[in-house]
Amino acid sequence: MADAGESTGPSKSALKKAEKQAKMAAEKAAKAAKQAALLEDFPQWYQEVVLKAQMIDYYNEISGFYILRPAAMYVWNTIRRWFQERIELMGVEETSFPMFLSQASFEKEKDHVEGFAPELAWVTKAGDKELEVPVAVRPTSEAVMYPYYSKWIRTHRDLPFRLNQWNNVVRWEAKQTTPFLRSREFLWQEGHTAHLTEELAGKEVLEILELYAGVYEQLLAVPVVRGRKTENEKFAGGYYTTTVEGYIPSNGRGIQGATSHCLGQNFSKMFDIKVEDPEVKGQHINVWQNSWGLSTRVIVGITKNTTPEERENLDKRLEEINQALTKAGVRVEVDVRDGYTPAWKFNDWELKGVPLRIEFGPKDSAKNVVSWARRDTGEKGTTDIAEIGSKIPELLETIQQDLYNKAEKSFREHRLNITNWDEVLPALDAKNVVLIPFCLDGKCEDRIKELTTGKPEETTEGGAPKAPTMGMKSLCIPFEQPEGLVKGETDCLNPECSRKAEQWCMFGRSY
Amino acid sequence: MADAGESTGPSKSALKKAEKQAKMAAEKAAKAAKQAALLEDFPQWYQEVVLKAQMIDYYNEISGFYILRPAAMYVWNTIRRWFQERIELMGVEETSFPMFLSQASFEKEKDHVEGFAPELAWVTKAGDKELEVPVAVRPTSEAVMYPYYSKWIRTHRDLPFRLNQWNNVVRWEAKQTTPFLRSREFLWQEGHTAHLTEELAGKEVLEILELYAGVYEQLLAVPVVRGRKTENEKFAGGYYTTTVEGYIPSNGRGIQGATSHCLGQNFSKMFDIKVEDPEVKGQHINVWQNSWGLSTRVIVGITKNTTPEERENLDKRLEEINQALTKAGVRVEVDVRDGYTPAWKFNDWELKGVPLRIEFGPKDSAKNVVSWARRDTGEKGTTDIAEIGSKIPELLETIQQDLYNKAEKSFREHRLNITNWDEVLPALDAKNVVLIPFCLDGKCEDRIKELTTGKPEETTEGGAPKAPTMGMKSLCIPFEQPEGLVKGETDCLNPECSRKAEQWCMFGRSY
Repeated sequence: MADAGESTGPSKSALKKAEKQAKMAAEKAAKAAKQAALLEDFPQWYQEVVLKAQMIDYYNEISGFYILRPAAMYVWNTIRRWFQERIELMGVEETSFPMFLSQASFEKEKDHVEGFAPELAWVTKAGDKELEVPVAVRPTSEAVMYPYYSKWIRTHRDLPFRLNQWNNVVRWEAKQTTPFLRSREFLWQEGHTAHLTEELAGKEVLEILELYAGVYEQLLAVPVVRGRKTENEKFAGGYYTTTVEGYIPSNGRGIQGATSHCLGQNFSKMFDIKVEDPEVKGQHINVWQNSWGLSTRVIVGITKNTTPEERENLDKRLEEINQALTKAGVRVEVDVRDGYTPAWKFNDWELKGVPLRIEFGPKDSAKNVVSWARRDTGEKGTTDIAEIGSKIPELLETIQQDLYNKAEKSFREHRLNITNWDEVLPALDAKNVVLIPFCLDGKCEDRIKELTTGKPEETTEGGAPKAPTMGMKSLCIPFEQPEGLVKGETDCLNPECSRKAEQWCMFGRSY
Repeated sequence: MADAGESTGPSKSALKKAEKQAKMAAEKAAKAAKQAALLEDFPQWYQEVVLKAQMIDYYNEISGFYILRPAAMYVWNTIRRWFQERIELMGVEETSFPMFLSQASFEKEKDHVEGFAPELAWVTKAGDKELEVPVAVRPTSEAVMYPYYSKWIRTHRDLPFRLNQWNNVVRWEAKQTTPFLRSREFLWQEGHTAHLTEELAGKEVLEILELYAGVYEQLLAVPVVRGRKTENEKFAGGYYTTTVEGYIPSNGRGIQGATSHCLGQNFSKMFDIKVEDPEVKGQHINVWQNSWGLSTRVIVGITKNTTPEERENLDKRLEEINQALTKAGVRVEVDVRDGYTPAWKFNDWELKGVPLRIEFGPKDSAKNVVSWARRDTGEKGTTDIAEIGSKIPELLETIQQDLYNKAEKSFREHRLNITNWDEVLPALDAKNVVLIPFCLDGKCEDRIKELTTGKPEETTEGGAPKAPTMGMKSLCIPFEQPEGLVKGETDCLNPECSRKAEQWCMFGRSY
């Protein structure tokens, strides 16, 4: 319908409206530009997000440490409960060992020492007295626990012997720290088990790995690749390490999700953990051991839930909606804060990662509906209040599934099988991880990292020195191997390597 | 009915029976004598029990540290869940702060420093590098957390502000350590809250104290006295401390159960935690703070549950019984171990503290019953299998109630109101705690401790020097005050004190 003022030029109100629209468009553009700029600098963007979402705060007093705020602890506790339920069913019991490690125990396993010694925090003083023997804060508890495994495991009937603890560990890293991904102290669970045979130990390693994959895929909607670490990347002192590896689309980097190690008999020999062979009287067998850990690093995968806060003065209908949703198992936050515009509140909750925003105003009330908006797609719609108890949980399930599918597609499309060395660097620069035929030799692996590291002496077009780009490291040898590699025929892809390829190995820039 | 062989003297089988009975009686007497001897030496008895029940193990590598084994962790986790559910309903959120404390933060509250400095463990080295600034392991987290309370609490609308964390702390005590009761590292929860007024803070202090009392009385069947700590015994840096105090009948000692502190404005002034007064624009109020903690010391109160272990090869009917009981919410252990006699098994589980033993043999099976024996009274009986789902939980409830009643009676009967100084020492020696009219003066309190400490120069009858007996310290000022104290008239009971009594105060030998 024609505006009454159309032939007399724009009216005052139309002008005002146009101005307002222009202003909003400009604001939107500025916001988009800022977001684009932030995404360019992924580390900065990431740190702002976890800070503004109130998941962490920086511990200014001591560098490399972070405070986990309620939004992060909620996620961690959800994961903890999920995992704890499942390992209890496997017969794993809970324990709590001291946080301090004696030097004598620590030094028993040579490779273990080499791996962890540089990052140990040493307590040398108590009150104003020097300790006669300094003690280290545990970086992991193999050397704390295994003297007692030797004492507690007396016969093969004590096997499998399985303990887990939820605790904090300290690794005083020199590298740049990043919230959740690399911090000098972190929370984790560490499981330590003992078995009669390699086969039984190996079976558990994979059962646990499947639980870790479940945490990512089922709880966090994050796809992972299951595989084995190369010798270079395995746990210090272990026999072999399995891993679930994730992928960050924004910068194409790989990221280790959690690891499940078979320690073999390395530690049981050093710590004298043995039982009489049930089949050969008088003969002793050193037990086969595993250890496996999942840390607060996992919280990275999820921002979809936030902290509940008690709210007073709820509008009666809002309270009914709240109750219907809560009863349906949905975690609800009702925001009735005064002094904030709806747009400010929308933005605030979006930042905190709430997956579904529900609005309820006078118009909705008149129609007996709630309005909603999905965070992942921006899609909007309405649902009858009478149906929210079933429809909203369904919608949340759909969002979860869509998030997973999107991430899975992205990871799949950015995991390239490459058989031509010249394609490796362009693939990395295009934010991919790569699977290449690989000889599995440790020195060759080191060399591949060097060959793919950008040289600092190169210059940019403007003539300024270019920062070296990160070389690729091995992420894992995927259990699911692509076709096309013929043992004894296919060459290792490293152009300097003369060996034949053993397996496809996944490499990438990584955390 | 007369035995066929009665007139011809004892038969071979009767002789054998008598011999067996004599042997059993001798064993029983020896066992009783051993137990009596152990009870004489209560600390030794206690340490043997927690060790043999597989609740703890000694951490031989570093003195003063203990390993919490699954039986202990089960109890701790049960308490943790119970308490966590209840503080969540109060609106307390979970957080996780770093375990290290900077010297600068620590030194802000003078009394706090004095209280904790002698027990701080200092990290001075990382890897092989000296730290520029040493950091201490937290003994408690006031000084770790409050710089952030200053940052996060912006307006009175952020109040009440309530965070809790479940973690480990280190207090490098010089005193003799004892499993659970005093160890250099322990697990606990520490709640830290901020309020607008003293009244609101005080209300929460008591709500939390009531939850702590609930943990002891409802979960652990252990009676406690609720009260306030004297100035001498309150939390270092706090305003006032409330406490629940328990009692150990075997040696008549008091034992602190858990404390809920009002910190007043001491810390908020030092850490600059303030909000604008909602009633006087432009004027600022330092918030009123509380902190409250419950540690693994609480595990002492309970030995009635033990670790579940997966069991295979279960007899079919046993499995039905097991399922019926488990379904009824009873924690069941089925012991089908080969190579152990029933008597050995009975003893083993009794040691671990299982409150109700259920036996099921061929005779029981024929009668469709299970036989049971109560740990607390030794009473035995049978229950129809069809009814175990209801009768066994009832029986466990009765045991729980009887245990509480017995402990409550014992504590009540050993809490003497004393108004004659000469009766104090005999009362302590008879394993009582005492309530006496007291002036509340700190120096008087110190003197009371000295006056009740046995002098080492005294000798025993044989002439050997006698170990000094422990003096009594104040446990709390009970909220429930006995009658008979007239303010301004009744004297403080300390014979050297010329002040009037303010309140009845509970004193005792204590942990």
